[in-house]
Amino acid sequence: MWLILRPSFFMLSVQVRCCSSRRAILYVPGDDIRKLNKALSLDADCIVMDCEDGVATNRKEEARVTIRQWLDEGRASNSTSEWSVRVNSVESDLCKEDLQTVLGGANKPPTLLLPKVESKEHIQWHMGGCQKINLIMYIESARAVVNLPDICRTAEQLSSTAPLKPAALVFGSDDLCANLGVTRSDNGTEILYARQKLVLVAKAFHLQAIDMRVQVLCFDNIPDLDGLQRQCEAGARMGYTGKQVIHPVQIPIVQQAFMPTAAIVEWAEGLIAAFQEHQKLGKGAFVYKGSMIDMPLLRQAENIIKLVSSNTKV
Amino acid sequence: MWLILRPSFFMLSVQVRCCSSRRAILYVPGDDIRKLNKALSLDADCIVMDCEDGVATNRKEEARVTIRQWLDEGRASNSTSEWSVRVNSVESDLCKEDLQTVLGGANKPPTLLLPKVESKEHIQWHMGGCQKINLIMYIESARAVVNLPDICRTAEQLSSTAPLKPAALVFGSDDLCANLGVTRSDNGTEILYARQKLVLVAKAFHLQAIDMRVQVLCFDNIPDLDGLQRQCEAGARMGYTGKQVIHPVQIPIVQQAFMPTAAIVEWAEGLIAAFQEHQKLGKGAFVYKGSMIDMPLLRQAENIIKLVSSNTKV
Amino acid sequence: MWLILRPSFFMLSVQVRCCSSRRAILYVPGDDIRKLNKALSLDADCIVMDCEDGVATNRKEEARVTIRQWLDEGRASNSTSEWSVRVNSVESDLCKEDLQTVLGGANKPPTLLLPKVESKEHIQWHMGGCQKINLIMYIESARAVVNLPDICRTAEQLSSTAPLKPAALVFGSDDLCANLGVTRSDNGTEILYARQKLVLVAKAFHLQAIDMRVQVLCFDNIPDLDGLQRQCEAGARMGYTGKQVIHPVQIPIVQQAFMPTAAIVEWAEGLIAAFQEHQKLGKGAFVYKGSMIDMPLLRQAENIIKLVSSNTKV
Repeated sequence: MWLILRPSFFMLSVQVRCCSSRRAILYVPGDDIRKLNKALSLDADCIVMDCEDGVATNRKEEARVTIRQWLDEGRASNSTSEWSVRVNSVESDLCKEDLQTVLGGANKPPTLLLPKVESKEHIQWHMGGCQKINLIMYIESARAVVNLPDICRTAEQLSSTAPLKPAALVFGSDDLCANLGVTRSDNGTEILYARQKLVLVAKAFHLQAIDMRVQVLCFDNIPDLDGLQRQCEAGARMGYTGKQVIHPVQIPIVQQAFMPTAAIVEWAEGLIAAFQEHQKLGKGAFVYKGSMIDMPLLRQAENIIKLVSSNTKV
Repeated sequence: MWLILRPSFFMLSVQVRCCSSRRAILYVPGDDIRKLNKALSLDADCIVMDCEDGVATNRKEEARVTIRQWLDEGRASNSTSEWSVRVNSVESDLCKEDLQTVLGGANKPPTLLLPKVESKEHIQWHMGGCQKINLIMYIESARAVVNLPDICRTAEQLSSTAPLKPAALVFGSDDLCANLGVTRSDNGTEILYARQKLVLVAKAFHLQAIDMRVQVLCFDNIPDLDGLQRQCEAGARMGYTGKQVIHPVQIPIVQQAFMPTAAIVEWAEGLIAAFQEHQKLGKGAFVYKGSMIDMPLLRQAENIIKLVSSNTKV
Repeated sequence: MWLILRPSFFMLSVQVRCCSSRRAILYVPGDDIRKLNKALSLDADCIVMDCEDGVATNRKEEARVTIRQWLDEGRASNSTSEWSVRVNSVESDLCKEDLQTVLGGANKPPTLLLPKVESKEHIQWHMGGCQKINLIMYIESARAVVNLPDICRTAEQLSSTAPLKPAALVFGSDDLCANLGVTRSDNGTEILYARQKLVLVAKAFHLQAIDMRVQVLCFDNIPDLDGLQRQCEAGARMGYTGKQVIHPVQIPIVQQAFMPTAAIVEWAEGLIAAFQEHQKLGKGAFVYKGSMIDMPLLRQAENIIKLVSSNTKV
């Protein structure tokens, strides 16, 4: 209930979680109430209540209804995580019913994750309501990578009139590899083009870039946390600021690896200082390090500082 | 003559050779009747009767006429290879005459290879006739790589009304390197962007991606077949499913290296099974692994299975 | 004054410096008359009189006026370097005044460098005058890399009516890294996509590709010239033909590393020979190695030969 009844907190929450603050993204099957409850005690930046791949075909309705109830009861209102929902893809024919159920209550999720976005047509649909909801899009096919600038441009344009506000892109490497007919290697050279194009387009449209899913990393059933850290660092070096995880034990490692770099923190501090100075002088828009500064950029900077200051404990 | 008189066989042939089934592509100069005859005994998936770079300027007319006669006489009707024709580029001013001669008879080649496609204008010309002919486009300049999505989109649109059906892209690395002013290295790092963009765009438009020509690999005049295998595997790891060869001895190595991966075979088997199930239920279009399944995808899957089952001998 | 009063020399100069001939690009703060005078004795291919990052905010007017005076007095008329001017970015609000001052005299600089070009809107402004001035655009943000083909297409179209003639792209890796939130590594893997896309788009539009700034390379205050050479060679292997330098001692190393390759020289010699042959026969346009040859390509070829023959001393 906090989402609606405490609008100031909601705004804060949306701001805090925007851009570079979703470091560890954890999936929970939407039909599994036990796992949902367990996730309440976890510290993932973003928890995804899943209707898609994590839910069997004959459990889709169960997932929708469970998530709706979860939202209605405000179960996660004390959680510091962003409790979001992943619906099924537009082409799956399950999407419409997912949306109607999941968004049909008074309490909307702050963020919606839409898998298999392949073209601008996939996001040119209209939702009722005027409350802003973040949109995270999965890019997981060759066609999606080709159409990526087009998709982001359309999402940006639509956000001025529709409630969906583009917030992030997820690099869906597993489906992309299947589409390309390739096997994902340890260092991912075979998908370097797609992985770097995604970061670039994301940054061009002020979206967070969330890296590919952690590969299963185990030695004799002991999770290979060093390998995980190497994978995170490889993504961070390219500009990714978050990663999808498959097990709670991976959360702190991912979070630490995706802490903003010193250069980013410096940029954010400088921007906020410059903004405050211009505010004092009564000036509106201004240029910082050659870029025209608008509110989204200011919020990004604020998020980075909040993230750093609230996670020095990590 | 089989192309026209045996339409059912022709259809089969086109299907078998579509998408991922052209593993080894061998060039034969169109004016060299001795080499054409020799190629009848070779097992290349695709044999290219060449009018372009393999033929001297003053032998162009000889090449056209020889190829036309070869087609008229149905010389390759017992071959399991796809006997195709490469004409000269649109900008060369030889192309029109090539097409008139080569396509002027009753027996059309199943596939036409068009070099140096640089923009959509290069494929916006019209051919008479209504028999479908596969179109393989060479991407071999910076401008072509930049315009690639545009070229493929146009080819796809044209195929609904014109007889040319886009089937594959060839990565022409030698001309591209010359255009970029670079020397091709052993691992090809300097053209990684172009090489991976080509695969992605090809897959986005359901086209086969055919990798760059084998580099001359010899030690003391003995062909370096290990080096060849490494080159093939590097391409296959990125999603290429075929390669251009320069000597018959290279054919079996290339064919083996480009056998579909287990993941691809599994995808194909699953898709065909799902299709048959939906057919039984009387349903038309359906979704398989998140993608709407249409006939081209079904045919791709069938080709993969045919390729695997007919080549376990290799 | 030579720029206006000696048009034939100016034409020659513009030709000599077009395309692949700017190997070492050296910046001099536009407000520092001592450094400007010192640069007269240096052998950089291109000397940039800077109004942008090299000049403090409160010295911008000083820089403009100094540069204007420098041009008016024809101070560099005996220099073999290309004395160009870098203005501030369009979004900085300093650009208009820079242009009015710097281009307001009789002696225009042969080349204008425009930083932070991010979209075609950034170059859709009009300058008076009809004398052609080369335009070098800095690509230094994610948005710029995404919009790059669009920017170059617009610049090409505008050049038919406006005095600005697109000549080169500069890969501004430092600002790009800041925008992506990444730290530039020694081999630059994290920006490989952007670095190779820039070369490809540049070549597609017949522009020179100028590589990223030399990283500070010192051991105990002794410049690491071996490291510099490795960095130059890495760029040259991808098709870059010039680099920005920060110290005069780096000039000869950069110049040597970016000498045209044997393959390029052979291409250029062949093209010029073919052109002369066609001229004798009274033919106009012709095809050389599959490309329609126009005057820009001929000039590129001539520049390469001039560059090689005038620098065998290096």
